[in-house]
Amino acid sequence: MNHAGEQGTLYVISAPSGAGKTSLVAEMLRQDARLGVSISHTTRPMREGEQDGVNYHFVDRGEFEAMIARGDFLEHADVFGNYYGTSQVWVRETLAKGQDVILEIDWQGAEQVRRLIPECVGIFIVPPSEQILRERLVGRGTDAPEVIERRLAEAEEECRHAIEFDYLVVNDDFEQALSELLCIVRTQRLSMANQRVRHEGLLAELSGRR
Amino acid sequence: MNHAGEQGTLYVISAPSGAGKTSLVAEMLRQDARLGVSISHTTRPMREGEQDGVNYHFVDRGEFEAMIARGDFLEHADVFGNYYGTSQVWVRETLAKGQDVILEIDWQGAEQVRRLIPECVGIFIVPPSEQILRERLVGRGTDAPEVIERRLAEAEEECRHAIEFDYLVVNDDFEQALSELLCIVRTQRLSMANQRVRHEGLLAELSGRR
Repeated sequence: MNHAGEQGTLYVISAPSGAGKTSLVAEMLRQDARLGVSISHTTRPMREGEQDGVNYHFVDRGEFEAMIARGDFLEHADVFGNYYGTSQVWVRETLAKGQDVILEIDWQGAEQVRRLIPECVGIFIVPPSEQILRERLVGRGTDAPEVIERRLAEAEEECRHAIEFDYLVVNDDFEQALSELLCIVRTQRLSMANQRVRHEGLLAELSGRR
Repeated sequence: MNHAGEQGTLYVISAPSGAGKTSLVAEMLRQDARLGVSISHTTRPMREGEQDGVNYHFVDRGEFEAMIARGDFLEHADVFGNYYGTSQVWVRETLAKGQDVILEIDWQGAEQVRRLIPECVGIFIVPPSEQILRERLVGRGTDAPEVIERRLAEAEEECRHAIEFDYLVVNDDFEQALSELLCIVRTQRLSMANQRVRHEGLLAELSGRR
């Protein structure tokens, strides 16, 4: 339900790999109809089972670089030779419709987004211990030790930026973490900035102004 | 449960008379053990059934004015010849123990508190319509029309200051409003400022710093 003039909120959710972010965000989207997720643009090849416009917007390098040059991206990154980016136009249009948007990006993307949309709400998700993080990363069982070590080093680097976010959720128990994430979203909607637009008529009436 | 260095949050909750604030706050306190409420000082006479130190700290005018002079109050007001005030020492000591504190005060008190403790969280509660507010104020059935009109005028004055608060809760359905209030409190505890103290060890461990 949209109300005239009501702006959606942009949530930037980051986490080290292995924190459970993807499953948590998927469940947030399932439980809260006012939440949408941005579909990234990427230059990496489409994998079997993926669909253009569903998993990613698949574009070639030339197109991606033209988009960078036009300032089309809210954030973008080059990850092992493939570009990934978030469309600024789509995000801003969706927010303007009163829909909330979640971006699942890393701390560097979050930093770029914060510069362009400072009113975004940053949430950082962590596992309950380094031991559990390690187990989750190793748990896949299919990767070489040096790949796991590199992933752990990346996870550590990511966690060093946790304090740049507005909220911290510890994913010890999935249901608990999910409920905390949904509570943050619900609280944001109760903020005066949002409520004064949603309840403009009521506030005027109660103040004796109509 | 307190954690070393963890600060409680001060909630300033205001509402027009008839919004249901007192019942909502009582239920918040019942459901959340980490919430405490400040007991005001007053110079008004003790009523039957009231207890000193439970309903209010009952003091005489001389003592109250000495406390004002010493800057003991976070906020105070003269309401129809009786003083009411909130002890600054008690509030600050309680917050320092990691306990959250609720102050139920009017917009003028809220303004005084905001100046001294700018990190306080302000919540304004409103009834769902002016019609319902009127019914609730008239509903007591025992007051003269001019008393009711004065109360309505005061309610309007109070509501004109709603937008000075951080959150707005519309008390249409009691359980819904209660759950929103508890959600605001829960979200505040997830803020990075609070969580980075509570999970200092975890963040250090995950960042490879211990």
